[in-house]
Amino acid sequence: MAVHLQVPESLLPVKGIRLATINAGIRYKNRDDMLLIEAAEGSTTAAVFTKNAFCAAPVTVARQHLAQAPIRYLLVNAGNANAGTGEPGLKAAKATCEALAQGTGVKANQVLPFSTGVIGMQLPVEKITAALPQLVASLKEDHWMVASRAIMTTDTLPKGMSKQLEVNGKTITITGIAKGAGMIHPNMATMLSYIATDAQIEQGTLQQVLSEVVDETFNCITIDGDTSTNDSLVLIATGKSGAVVNQTNVASFKTAVKEVCLFLAQAIVRDGEGATKFIDVQVEQARSREEAHIVANTVALSPLVKTALFASDPNWGRILAAVGRSPIDNLDVNRVTLYLGKTLLVKGGQPSPDYTEAQGQAETKQDEIKIRIVLGRGDATANVWTCDFSFDYVKINAEYRS
Amino acid sequence: MAVHLQVPESLLPVKGIRLATINAGIRYKNRDDMLLIEAAEGSTTAAVFTKNAFCAAPVTVARQHLAQAPIRYLLVNAGNANAGTGEPGLKAAKATCEALAQGTGVKANQVLPFSTGVIGMQLPVEKITAALPQLVASLKEDHWMVASRAIMTTDTLPKGMSKQLEVNGKTITITGIAKGAGMIHPNMATMLSYIATDAQIEQGTLQQVLSEVVDETFNCITIDGDTSTNDSLVLIATGKSGAVVNQTNVASFKTAVKEVCLFLAQAIVRDGEGATKFIDVQVEQARSREEAHIVANTVALSPLVKTALFASDPNWGRILAAVGRSPIDNLDVNRVTLYLGKTLLVKGGQPSPDYTEAQGQAETKQDEIKIRIVLGRGDATANVWTCDFSFDYVKINAEYRS
Repeated sequence: MAVHLQVPESLLPVKGIRLATINAGIRYKNRDDMLLIEAAEGSTTAAVFTKNAFCAAPVTVARQHLAQAPIRYLLVNAGNANAGTGEPGLKAAKATCEALAQGTGVKANQVLPFSTGVIGMQLPVEKITAALPQLVASLKEDHWMVASRAIMTTDTLPKGMSKQLEVNGKTITITGIAKGAGMIHPNMATMLSYIATDAQIEQGTLQQVLSEVVDETFNCITIDGDTSTNDSLVLIATGKSGAVVNQTNVASFKTAVKEVCLFLAQAIVRDGEGATKFIDVQVEQARSREEAHIVANTVALSPLVKTALFASDPNWGRILAAVGRSPIDNLDVNRVTLYLGKTLLVKGGQPSPDYTEAQGQAETKQDEIKIRIVLGRGDATANVWTCDFSFDYVKINAEYRS
Repeated sequence: MAVHLQVPESLLPVKGIRLATINAGIRYKNRDDMLLIEAAEGSTTAAVFTKNAFCAAPVTVARQHLAQAPIRYLLVNAGNANAGTGEPGLKAAKATCEALAQGTGVKANQVLPFSTGVIGMQLPVEKITAALPQLVASLKEDHWMVASRAIMTTDTLPKGMSKQLEVNGKTITITGIAKGAGMIHPNMATMLSYIATDAQIEQGTLQQVLSEVVDETFNCITIDGDTSTNDSLVLIATGKSGAVVNQTNVASFKTAVKEVCLFLAQAIVRDGEGATKFIDVQVEQARSREEAHIVANTVALSPLVKTALFASDPNWGRILAAVGRSPIDNLDVNRVTLYLGKTLLVKGGQPSPDYTEAQGQAETKQDEIKIRIVLGRGDATANVWTCDFSFDYVKINAEYRS
């Protein structure tokens, strides 16, 4: 029951990127569960990974490989996270990279491995290596749509977006796919996203763009606060459009990448497990963006706020209580203003005299809800996007292994 | 559906303390909803209050009064939190103190006001002041049991405990009551606890005892992380036993107060909304108690861990993921050991080879579950007590205002 999630009718190929999918029988029977992405020689690659100390084996290996050599292949499986698997898990991840390297004539450290699925089971290396020849043989530029489906676990819909822009009179394409619903997927460890462009861009600049964009997109979504062991986001630039992006013209490129990341990040929230509402928490007039983010995050994580919105209850007391317990210094509650959509509920820390419960309910009955919290102590703004907290969240997470 | 919550058959009177309850019609029709506690002249009073910036009006007034004069009365109402009520709310809280002061011959700042219930409604001052004469007239030493019921909101059972100990050959009594289920009660702003003793103890020592004990009891429970606007805990010492507690013999007194606080704090978790399991998260071998508490709290707040335990699922991957995202420095996951009860699940960051799913399920099927996380980097330990996350939590919090 995704909330207003648009599934793309098609995704644009990116020059220099080929993709292939296959059913390797890792967990799923009637759908593809492996994805191979090939990047042309000369591509640059930027990535960000989970900060969870218990990161999965493929995350450890991918970090190492990324620092060692230019990346040519991303090898992804769904159904098994290869997390909590210790030394055997590391060996398994490396073995799949080596097998692919042998079959394609690259070095093993030019392959980044990714896994998503159940934590604590050893990776079925043989099933993966057995599937590699057919995967390599079926690589094609226009396989982005099937790729977006092959990496799904408990996602209800695939997530992808394409965007084009002109750089120095040439057209460049950016296409991205993602899976997962933030941290909400039980055992499914969890968020993966792959974005590619045919722009030509030096690795340092590419990483800088990705890191800055992530802070304003993927790092601003939350479902339940549980950071996955497998979160990975990769941005590849093949250079095959012939359009060069550098420090002088990076702004428009960054804006386009941000648009793709924002769509994919919000898509993850819209497909949040049990989600019936998409909620935009916007905090304004904070002393810093960081402070605004902290307050927005506290409200977006509050089970009391999220269960109230599931019930379309404009329960502003719970929102104020979450603002009040946010870990920021010296909040003057007498300066706080609160809106639901365009309706003013609280001004100067007190209920607005004109506010009626009917007005609030009209706002919370929508399936897209905007909470605006104006702190009155600075000029920084931040948004956090989340979903409501429903019976189905508990049901899905309680019954997952039964 | 409280989890193994023992309701006391009786509570011991405390010399110098008298109590009275009444139905003032604030919200409830067929039960008492006001409580008055009188402390004999010469009593000392210590208290801790919510750290929520949006604290309720009575909390603001109580803080002021406590700093100004020796406290003689605690005036408590259930059904209306007097929170989010701005300047009129402050005037209302003060008005009730003044009315009680006039009727009893004390000063208004010798009264501490407390409210619990719905946020955002103005306090019905007339109903409260009208009830005061009868309340004062019915004060009695043995009214602790009815007091424990009069402060309930959505609690399913009353919470109270008595304890006696010998000090310098004299018997002192400690009796305490509490209401609320931590932060889980929707709109019900929330935790109140009153403890009294007939020991004679100077105010500074009393406050020190209370602050230290709270850190190891009430500050170690969590239901959903939502800090209430009204949390208040008061410890009164009347001195009427004739037994003097001072720095030389405070240890045994502190131990007894801690036992009462621990019982009441855990009682709140056992009566957590929708709770079907009582969960003790114990983190050992941390570098400091603070670090151990941070890790235990992260696990105890994880919706994924709590929904798994609701389903009796020994889903250790979710526990490790929560440990791994705890905000502590340089965790070496290869030193982490995990037990459920006495069953070893993970050693050196990897699944124990001898572990079987059946062993884990035998542990998680219990309604009292102990999670032991051994970090292997120090010698500090901390516990956090919580409950599971069930359908009923969402149901109760979503449907509260319908």
